[in-house]
Amino acid sequence: MHKINIEEKFSLINKHWSPKIVGELNGQHVLLAKIKGEFVMHKHDDEDEMFLVIEGSFRMEMPGKTIELGKGEFLIIPKGQEHRPIAEKEALIMLFEPAGTINTGNVKHDYSIDSPERI
Amino acid sequence: MHKINIEEKFSLINKHWSPKIVGELNGQHVLLAKIKGEFVMHKHDDEDEMFLVIEGSFRMEMPGKTIELGKGEFLIIPKGQEHRPIAEKEALIMLFEPAGTINTGNVKHDYSIDSPERI
Repeated sequence: MHKINIEEKFSLINKHWSPKIVGELNGQHVLLAKIKGEFVMHKHDDEDEMFLVIEGSFRMEMPGKTIELGKGEFLIIPKGQEHRPIAEKEALIMLFEPAGTINTGNVKHDYSIDSPERI
Repeated sequence: MHKINIEEKFSLINKHWSPKIVGELNGQHVLLAKIKGEFVMHKHDDEDEMFLVIEGSFRMEMPGKTIELGKGEFLIIPKGQEHRPIAEKEALIMLFEPAGTINTGNVKHDYSIDSPERI
């Protein structure tokens, strides 16, 4: 058992759209990701997913709705909801989701990561 | 579905050691709490618990070990681990734990809250 410093962990991440596991509890993963540009529209049939902005901002596009998120704000995407994060500039986010969640959900894409690295 | 601004939610909290629910996903609650002073030593037999510092600092006392936590740091307390948060000055924290977790765990105390309020 040891504490995690979020800034230190982000310094180890040098690729966009590549979430890294930094914690696990109750079958859920805590992940950090640097994002920039457009992700792919996708959904998770069985998993809710939480996006918390640590630095910067991004917008979550969904069919018929877009939500802008800034530092210190979070959004929970319920299972089955199509969504696509887009960041004009680099943003640093924390994610909470069940262990085993695939980042691109129901879509197979170059961004797909089946098993995120632990840092 | 709407975003949550953490600072706005904290402005609604005017009592220490009284976590408020601000989100729910996959059977887990996201809570915010203002803490100051000494909490009671306790454990959760079946729930892991995550403490993320949003503002300020506090220390987590455990039998034989103390961990100091500052802004942007988090600690996951595994189920069964006795722990007691202590904040010399007011600290603002975010908690992740299964829905239904009692804040004082196995200990009945004046601080015990069986059903946290949603804000």
